[in-house]
Amino acid sequence: MNYDQIFDQAIERLHSEGRYRVFIDILRNKGAFPNARCFAGHNGPKPITVWCSNDYLAMGQHPKVVSAMEEALHDVGAGSGGTRNIGGNTHYHIELERELADLHGKEGALLFTSGYVSNDATLSTLAKLLPGCVVFSDALNHASMIAGIRNSGCEKKVWRHNDVEHLEELLAAADPNVPKLIAFESVYSMDGDVAPIHAICDLADKYNAITYLDEVHAVGMYGKRGGGISERDEAAHRVTIIEGTLGKAFGVMGGYIATDTRIIDCIRSYAPGFIFTTSLSPVLVAGVLASVRHLKSSSEEREGQQRSAAQLKSMFRDAGLPVMDSVTHIVPLMVGDPVKAKKISDILLAEYGAYVQPINFPTVPRGTERLRFTPGPAHTEEMMRDLTEALVEIWDRLEMRIAA
Amino acid sequence: MNYDQIFDQAIERLHSEGRYRVFIDILRNKGAFPNARCFAGHNGPKPITVWCSNDYLAMGQHPKVVSAMEEALHDVGAGSGGTRNIGGNTHYHIELERELADLHGKEGALLFTSGYVSNDATLSTLAKLLPGCVVFSDALNHASMIAGIRNSGCEKKVWRHNDVEHLEELLAAADPNVPKLIAFESVYSMDGDVAPIHAICDLADKYNAITYLDEVHAVGMYGKRGGGISERDEAAHRVTIIEGTLGKAFGVMGGYIATDTRIIDCIRSYAPGFIFTTSLSPVLVAGVLASVRHLKSSSEEREGQQRSAAQLKSMFRDAGLPVMDSVTHIVPLMVGDPVKAKKISDILLAEYGAYVQPINFPTVPRGTERLRFTPGPAHTEEMMRDLTEALVEIWDRLEMRIAA
Repeated sequence: MNYDQIFDQAIERLHSEGRYRVFIDILRNKGAFPNARCFAGHNGPKPITVWCSNDYLAMGQHPKVVSAMEEALHDVGAGSGGTRNIGGNTHYHIELERELADLHGKEGALLFTSGYVSNDATLSTLAKLLPGCVVFSDALNHASMIAGIRNSGCEKKVWRHNDVEHLEELLAAADPNVPKLIAFESVYSMDGDVAPIHAICDLADKYNAITYLDEVHAVGMYGKRGGGISERDEAAHRVTIIEGTLGKAFGVMGGYIATDTRIIDCIRSYAPGFIFTTSLSPVLVAGVLASVRHLKSSSEEREGQQRSAAQLKSMFRDAGLPVMDSVTHIVPLMVGDPVKAKKISDILLAEYGAYVQPINFPTVPRGTERLRFTPGPAHTEEMMRDLTEALVEIWDRLEMRIAA
Repeated sequence: MNYDQIFDQAIERLHSEGRYRVFIDILRNKGAFPNARCFAGHNGPKPITVWCSNDYLAMGQHPKVVSAMEEALHDVGAGSGGTRNIGGNTHYHIELERELADLHGKEGALLFTSGYVSNDATLSTLAKLLPGCVVFSDALNHASMIAGIRNSGCEKKVWRHNDVEHLEELLAAADPNVPKLIAFESVYSMDGDVAPIHAICDLADKYNAITYLDEVHAVGMYGKRGGGISERDEAAHRVTIIEGTLGKAFGVMGGYIATDTRIIDCIRSYAPGFIFTTSLSPVLVAGVLASVRHLKSSSEEREGQQRSAAQLKSMFRDAGLPVMDSVTHIVPLMVGDPVKAKKISDILLAEYGAYVQPINFPTVPRGTERLRFTPGPAHTEEMMRDLTEALVEIWDRLEMRIAA
């Protein structure tokens, strides 16, 4: 038994597949997003433009968010000091849960330390509470949903991505008397496509299933008040549980679910991942409160993001770059090879000061490695033109076929 | 299939066992800890004294921590905007990992969004990477360690709490050729007792096992630089992986492991709970950096805490209250009944303005329900005297036998 050897082999596997990852050392410049400073491999910090942030609307730098956090920091201090049950509940947490419940038109909401934990804790606990539950899971569901479903120990049926006919086949084949949970996302973050929420809810009604919808790449960005695709499609009332993040469009950190009081009560009472963890810092919670409230009434950021995404897609397409078929704010370029994806990303950063991370397995299936751009309201036309020209030059240099 | 009925029954079980929990709505007063404001069931906020915070050294209110957070907020904004691999790594994260590695004398460290996630992600991934691994787990290990071990799918052997003879029996009975992982804590947070780290490491050497030590209730508080019990006992170099939290003595939020570079590389590359989650807000990371650095050089907070704990234990003992046998800063009073524990806590808050949460199942075994006090450097002798008198009055009122 040589432990070092086993660990070395595990790391060697990553190198040999070209998917060993190196953290890039950056600092964003508040008030000047998407500008940032890069510390890696240079003499002193070097200015870069960030193209792969999930702070989609730059709310992490919004003056209202920053000043709300500053105020909370001076009012109550850095951390919560405990779990929600033991000393770590604050007035901020309660207010934010009310605000999020209202955002989705639900009775209640429950905060978690991250979106990952929301999915893992809720799905695993929910499925365990329902005796004999079968979970129906979209094939492209996020790793955190897969973890939650696996950790529940329940039977799982995977339906082909966004294919409601296949979902119905699986539902029809299941025992009508067992509890059923359909788990899916609204916006799939690596492809940028959108689930047919109404069609899925129709099936849930027909087969008496409950539904769990991950809206992490949609909250803040879709719907009149930022309630996500379920708000835009007027489907929120049909979904049993909506899950969201506070770390992407809302710009801070954390996760939540919004649903019936009865389910909230069960999850907060039975989920170890909720019970046994220090609650979110009140400083973060105060920032999110300001962010959610702002995006409920302002559509400027959402419109700016959609404009930028449409423009970048069209520039990429006109330049013959292999832009994938996305109907959302996410702009993926297919590469199909982990080594090339990393190479393009490295050249972009070193020579052009443009930062976009290569997306490799296990984030996407092998053979579909890509670059994923997330232009926001603050990316200018000039930045997009520079980026497109850089990509065309690199595509030529690496002798990759141009699609057009 | 009636979903509502199933959820109602789950909640009813909690009520019938007297362990349905209500969040208490408070705000702490920065600069005046342990004073806070309570919002529940009163007209306007009412002042209270907090006796159950895990912000053990009041570092969440330390001027250095607050100003470091303020500076980061204004320099880079609210959130990190991504995972560590994709846009969410910052210079702060890298610096804090260096600082924590140094604290424990290890090659590297890795940050997680919480201590819960550190344990769950590391243990489940580590045990999965080691083919045929058997995990040896102390009977009183925290829920997050139990979750990680269970989620690894490995064989688990539970040894009686802190009983090294029993641990050796189990190790001796296992196949000498399979990987072995011994998982335990240094300070057990609900009893306040301490693990015999050297004796456990002796067994790890003898049976070729690796060791995983949870120091969440010890980091910042024990050892000359706050490296925990493993520093105090000069055992840190013998432990394979040390896990800690940033949300208790360091006063902010988050978790980490410190270990060999090789293991860090494996965990950051293979653990879904690390890979697929937005990284800690740089604002929090900056605060922790200040806190860890301060506690490396200042022992004032640690000494104040030990003084307060000794004083409160002795006052409780002199008053004949059933204080449990703790050798640390944790001061538990045994009640042994969930309904009574809650009742005492309710009276303390409503009539005496003293906040201590009842600790019920599943946090402690049924029949060992208790009140758990965590006096810190800022709790005064007068506060302790008031608290002791209040408890004696309540013990009399509820006709509970006094131990002395």
